[in-house]
Amino acid sequence: MDMKVPTVTTGSLPASRKIYKAGQQFTDLKVPMREIAVHPTAGEPPTVVYDSSGPYTDPDAMIDLSAGLPPLRKKWIADRNDVEEYLGRTVKPEDNGSVQSSKSGLEFSVQCAPLRAKECKAVTQIAYARAGIVTPEMEFVAIRENIGREKIKGKMKRDGESFAADIPDFVTPEFVREEVARGRAIIPANINHPEAEPMIIGRNFLVKINANIGNSAVTSSMPEEVEKMVWATRWGADTVMDLSTGRDIHNVREWIIRNSPVPIGTVPMYQALEKVNGIAEDLTWELFRDTLIEQAEQGVDYFTIHAGVRLHHIPLTVGRTTGIVSRGGSIMAKWCLHHHRESFLYENFDKICDICRAYDVSFSLGDGLRPGSIADANDAAQFAELETLGELTQIAWAKDCQVIIEGPGHVPMHKIKRNMEKQLETCGEAPFYTLGPLTTDIAPGYDHITSGIGAAMIGWYGTAMLCYVTPKEHLGLPDRDDVKTGVITYKIAAHAADLAKGHPGAQARDDALSRARFEFRWEDQFNLSLDPETARDYHDQTLPKQAHKVAHFCSMCGPKFCSMKISHEIRSEAQKEGMEAMAKKFREGGELYLPLDQVDVPAEK
Amino acid sequence: MDMKVPTVTTGSLPASRKIYKAGQQFTDLKVPMREIAVHPTAGEPPTVVYDSSGPYTDPDAMIDLSAGLPPLRKKWIADRNDVEEYLGRTVKPEDNGSVQSSKSGLEFSVQCAPLRAKECKAVTQIAYARAGIVTPEMEFVAIRENIGREKIKGKMKRDGESFAADIPDFVTPEFVREEVARGRAIIPANINHPEAEPMIIGRNFLVKINANIGNSAVTSSMPEEVEKMVWATRWGADTVMDLSTGRDIHNVREWIIRNSPVPIGTVPMYQALEKVNGIAEDLTWELFRDTLIEQAEQGVDYFTIHAGVRLHHIPLTVGRTTGIVSRGGSIMAKWCLHHHRESFLYENFDKICDICRAYDVSFSLGDGLRPGSIADANDAAQFAELETLGELTQIAWAKDCQVIIEGPGHVPMHKIKRNMEKQLETCGEAPFYTLGPLTTDIAPGYDHITSGIGAAMIGWYGTAMLCYVTPKEHLGLPDRDDVKTGVITYKIAAHAADLAKGHPGAQARDDALSRARFEFRWEDQFNLSLDPETARDYHDQTLPKQAHKVAHFCSMCGPKFCSMKISHEIRSEAQKEGMEAMAKKFREGGELYLPLDQVDVPAEK
Repeated sequence: MDMKVPTVTTGSLPASRKIYKAGQQFTDLKVPMREIAVHPTAGEPPTVVYDSSGPYTDPDAMIDLSAGLPPLRKKWIADRNDVEEYLGRTVKPEDNGSVQSSKSGLEFSVQCAPLRAKECKAVTQIAYARAGIVTPEMEFVAIRENIGREKIKGKMKRDGESFAADIPDFVTPEFVREEVARGRAIIPANINHPEAEPMIIGRNFLVKINANIGNSAVTSSMPEEVEKMVWATRWGADTVMDLSTGRDIHNVREWIIRNSPVPIGTVPMYQALEKVNGIAEDLTWELFRDTLIEQAEQGVDYFTIHAGVRLHHIPLTVGRTTGIVSRGGSIMAKWCLHHHRESFLYENFDKICDICRAYDVSFSLGDGLRPGSIADANDAAQFAELETLGELTQIAWAKDCQVIIEGPGHVPMHKIKRNMEKQLETCGEAPFYTLGPLTTDIAPGYDHITSGIGAAMIGWYGTAMLCYVTPKEHLGLPDRDDVKTGVITYKIAAHAADLAKGHPGAQARDDALSRARFEFRWEDQFNLSLDPETARDYHDQTLPKQAHKVAHFCSMCGPKFCSMKISHEIRSEAQKEGMEAMAKKFREGGELYLPLDQVDVPAEK
Repeated sequence: MDMKVPTVTTGSLPASRKIYKAGQQFTDLKVPMREIAVHPTAGEPPTVVYDSSGPYTDPDAMIDLSAGLPPLRKKWIADRNDVEEYLGRTVKPEDNGSVQSSKSGLEFSVQCAPLRAKECKAVTQIAYARAGIVTPEMEFVAIRENIGREKIKGKMKRDGESFAADIPDFVTPEFVREEVARGRAIIPANINHPEAEPMIIGRNFLVKINANIGNSAVTSSMPEEVEKMVWATRWGADTVMDLSTGRDIHNVREWIIRNSPVPIGTVPMYQALEKVNGIAEDLTWELFRDTLIEQAEQGVDYFTIHAGVRLHHIPLTVGRTTGIVSRGGSIMAKWCLHHHRESFLYENFDKICDICRAYDVSFSLGDGLRPGSIADANDAAQFAELETLGELTQIAWAKDCQVIIEGPGHVPMHKIKRNMEKQLETCGEAPFYTLGPLTTDIAPGYDHITSGIGAAMIGWYGTAMLCYVTPKEHLGLPDRDDVKTGVITYKIAAHAADLAKGHPGAQARDDALSRARFEFRWEDQFNLSLDPETARDYHDQTLPKQAHKVAHFCSMCGPKFCSMKISHEIRSEAQKEGMEAMAKKFREGGELYLPLDQVDVPAEK
């Protein structure tokens, strides 16, 4: 195979400029944001939005995929003086599916010695937080979360229903520290992934989304997966999970991590299974442990660990319509049943914690028994596992490890809220990280939508991060277009949840776009949208001319029927008459008018 | 212009067979259903689903678009002996935008004399219902609604949260009569549209969806619109609104109605405005009245009437971010303001009722002041209008007219429920018919999704019919592909709502599809889905071979990682050991096991 350096999508989004904000405590921070310019006639400042895309959208950044992104956290990590470089584990042929790395031609050329915690040290963000230390990572995420809040200082009107979340008017670094310390939020940040820009996952912060990528044994390749990662973050993915299986798994992951501006998650079990040629029974704790270290040294920021699938849970799944649908869960179930033994993940959980603690790999406790159909939602197997995850959360916390909890799956709307409530009760408010949930099973090909509905709702109820689902779910591996559709759909769900929870400043973008719409600033409307290219393309399908970009109508209704155009005429007519005088007449009532107290229904929730 | 007879999409859906069920009271009824066959290995009967597609999907039906569909309700209407044929209104040039019909070449060739009620008679379904009469239409919809319920008779487990709706185990014709009589449901069925198959809209019935079609002054044509109508019903649209503006409006509508198997709605104001060349101030009651009669004679099944926009409401919209976004609402507001007079729709509402009563045109009371942005949701203007709609509902009911109420619009998730509650309170439980609502403004190009979220939720809360939104919303006129995407998205929302409300039998299709998925019956999985073509296409993009249609994996995870495959191995392993024996061991507890009472978390909502 030839050496193929991937090519990825770079450059600004339309009308957008990358800006960076410095910290107050850590003045060398460069917190990225995207500023979207509007037309001068708008008479308003640019809209600033959260930006997960990393240096790829900064025209001033030099991108060299063979070298990887600059290690922005390197100095912060070194300054804490609690890590050491060491000679890492040697990459073995079986790490790449028994292909010689030199043969596959996919080896990443720059090899750094990995870092690990010095003896007895915990180098996790939760350990620092508990010790009262505000890290640069914490100030970084505080600044990121505050976008739009400074502007409305003093005139902030809180709206929304947050279901007893505790969303502050402003996010201070100290608030971040407190939330991380009590386990209500995590900052996934492996010391061996210094390239990533810190971000936070927690119920009192903006709702985040994850995009899954990764090749499978039957399709895709490393360059495609690296581009998918960059592409996903361009459209708003806050973290990316590399779910690769098949060959070259170690090398593909190295390329992804070295070039990723967002935290990377994995399911180490997938690679472990490759190492035993897909025979679940042959898995051992030693092999699994070795795989964890391999991935921790590479810089994986969070591990999905299916330690909640216990031997005695398995009979609970036998009457199910769709059995066990989590890959990791089914592998562990098979192992347990074959050996008639308790899960080695469960039995060795404290040892896994020790590894995670030495690199700050966060736990994403996997829901191996999540329902795979409406029929199986909220069943005994699912909730039995959730209880175990609550127990494991306490063990991980005691070891100073960061934890999030994975959730379903397939759940009809009326059973979604119970999932959130039970997770909060059971897992001590550790952040919830859900897949969808899909609200019906009948629409393969559209499961981004069946699940987007559930995702928006559970995000509102309190889920901290939503794992996207693409149109290809249940049918095949997502390609680049599917990744974009999945990401945009989940940005919609997350943002709808932010609005409903009442995040201060969240509505600013809606308002800016709506003003642009009402004032026929078509270009601004496109540019302020989640996907400017598609918005423009749809508009231009019927009215392609440049002149139509300032037209006071579109093809939907044509010029005579544009309600917004008529609204403007109404306003100017009203101005002519003097709105004040008119309003006075209305207030007084008269032949035509009801007195105001019979009319003026106050705005309500 | 050449005479163009449209061509439309016909033929069965994959693995599907049209079946018809007879009535018990009216034995000549042929209630259509779609039976989806599954592979013999499934060992289960076909799945029967609701079918809105009319004769177009029946291979035995002769389709002749120039002649229109057979008038299946003709005899039922005649048998009631309360209507008379009469010489209808003459079509005038201005009905078609002042184009001579003969010139446009679009005239529908078959012209029947219209029917109207005999003197003093009310020929509406609500009038019959109140008189204690069960009509064939009522038994027809009862049979349609019961799909899947007979199968589970005796073993029906009710699940769901219906928010105090009153959903019966079985829908009897008498139940339909009661619901129609008390105004909680409508059967839109103009006596001049005998071609349509009866359907019902009400909170205690399956959630319905409407698709908007129609040309605008700048784009599209009659043949395209007729195909869009057939296409929309093929994928599940329960009603279609023809929102055409521009020229040939009368003729386009005639083609649509004569060929439509579903009720057709319109906004008569659009045509009225065309007749005064787009100058709202020139509208008069006489011209509007004439337009109502024109459309009632053609067979329009429901009219959107924006009679709730009153003069004194208009100042309430002046501070809004996006003013008035309903086309009809903005036209009426402009008229009121210009003449400084109360709305002629409001003042003549009783006369409009008289017209509707004579043809059984249902009212869809328009929400002319619905919010057009998150910023304007649930504001004073919106709720003031809703109060007026409640008042008009009482007037229409007193005249034996059927009524539904239109609802928003743009509403963040936390404000959706209030809309449903307030509508129920204000409008005496008349069915709610909502557009979306869109849960954020920031995603033009994806507003089927922003609104699909809101639609699923408000459908769950009690909305009876969801008006679809296509990806082109805010950007342009939807084409055929957009129509399909909009319909499928809204079928998902409606079905998710049916599941959450706990409609008996609604889950049958989910269960059948999930079983197919678990058993690797790929063909069955495609065929049982809302869009078999897309599901198959997505699967085949990576695994096109026929052999892969029976493979125990897909490209998503590959053969080693298929959780469902492993689940089957687990089950067969369990069987080998004897599940009974194993279960016994689990129950007893032991070294590895907890006693069952510590494990068996009962399934919960």
